Amino acid sequence: MAQVCDSQPAIVLVRPQLGENIGMAARAMLNFGLTDMRLVSPRDGWPNPSAGPAASGADVVLDKAAVFDRVEDAIADCHLVFATTMRGRDMPKPVMTPREAARRMRSALTDGQKPAILFGPERSGLTNDDVTLVDSVLSVPVNPDFGSLNLAQTVVVTAYEYAQSYDATPSVRPAHEDGLAPKEDLIGLMQHLEDELAARGFFRSEDRYGAQRRMLRNLLQSGSFSAQEVRTFRGIVKALTRPERGSENDRF
Amino acid sequence: MAQVCDSQPAIVLVRPQLGENIGMAARAMLNFGLTDMRLVSPRDGWPNPSAGPAASGADVVLDKAAVFDRVEDAIADCHLVFATTMRGRDMPKPVMTPREAARRMRSALTDGQKPAILFGPERSGLTNDDVTLVDSVLSVPVNPDFGSLNLAQTVVVTAYEYAQSYDATPSVRPAHEDGLAPKEDLIGLMQHLEDELAARGFFRSEDRYGAQRRMLRNLLQSGSFSAQEVRTFRGIVKALTRPERGSENDRF
Repeated sequence: MAQVCDSQPAIVLVRPQLGENIGMAARAMLNFGLTDMRLVSPRDGWPNPSAGPAASGADVVLDKAAVFDRVEDAIADCHLVFATTMRGRDMPKPVMTPREAARRMRSALTDGQKPAILFGPERSGLTNDDVTLVDSVLSVPVNPDFGSLNLAQTVVVTAYEYAQSYDATPSVRPAHEDGLAPKEDLIGLMQHLEDELAARGFFRSEDRYGAQRRMLRNLLQSGSFSAQEVRTFRGIVKALTRPERGSENDRF
Repeated sequence: MAQVCDSQPAIVLVRPQLGENIGMAARAMLNFGLTDMRLVSPRDGWPNPSAGPAASGADVVLDKAAVFDRVEDAIADCHLVFATTMRGRDMPKPVMTPREAARRMRSALTDGQKPAILFGPERSGLTNDDVTLVDSVLSVPVNPDFGSLNLAQTVVVTAYEYAQSYDATPSVRPAHEDGLAPKEDLIGLMQHLEDELAARGFFRSEDRYGAQRRMLRNLLQSGSFSAQEVRTFRGIVKALTRPERGSENDRF
């Protein structure tokens, strides 16, 4: 694969609330060799003075943490993205254990793809809109009567399983010669399609807009499309929105 | 086989310093179904008012926590005991990963034996004297340049692996409740799309028609779409081929 990317998954903290938890997540990451931390709209800004002490020496992770306004931007260069949620959401996404997700991330890295894992805010977790942007849900199997891992604990389990999976050999070769589309391409397609559909009254009401839009995004997300396939999709949308030609025979 | 014991390992915190860490350890335990917490000489006495808030609802673990003066007393009824240490000690004991230790604990429980795991104080860890009392050392494989899991994080990994060693959770749950679309639906979509594209001059020439059509069909095939998703796709094609509405505001 031609693509060069650093060979580890990105840990993306989405709208984290407490600096202390960011620091503890950094500490958890570095214990298992992970250093690519990304922050989406940290509540109290960045840098945060509470993060350093909680990192207990994992400053290298905090120092190179990248900050983004939106999840879309944080995963733009990634190819295989997981959303950590405690419960399965009512979403058409495969739900995986940390072990299976780790296996798939290793496999993706071998193919030159960049994986990422999203972790939601402490109180509320990821929104359904966040989850529409990902390929799969990662769910830590917990006590059904007490599922309450905190942010850093969830990062610990996920990073630990990733480190454990080191010698996993990929058993499946990739479907796409030219590699999976980066999320940036896919999100561009989503926006293009939504604009054209909106202009044609596809969304039935303001009430249903959110749900219909999430459904569309999940639909496009589920395909594991290559960059070339995303370009093709955009060509299709462009073609479909052209006026029909006059003659039945004028097909070429 | 004669002995009756509750069927889970004991988590033994040896001389823990902060109540908050005892609470967070309880929370980690209950997430993975463990409730047998034992405390050896907690520095600030017991009960500790900082433990409850940090347990985030895992009060059942704190309420039944048993307190002992010495490690010897805390493990008196146990048969297979592990000591968690970050590094191998210079001791004639087998050193095991959390996964291997979990396997052996399951096996011991099957034979009516009670397992236990010792965790040392936050700052200094277990002493060599503590370690002499155990059968094996349990060591979480961490980054050789940054081994710094805190007490509760080490409990998380250990309890997680224990739960995994039994867990019947499938490693991947499927994305579609209603199952994959039958090929009939998919082929109907392909034909609908091809007709509409042909009517709009998408296929550039008779020569390239075959190749473009195959590419389109592979594209739709690669998504593993559900029947509902295929219906949605047909709705999209229908909407896109409608004329655009007059006003930008007329989106619904």
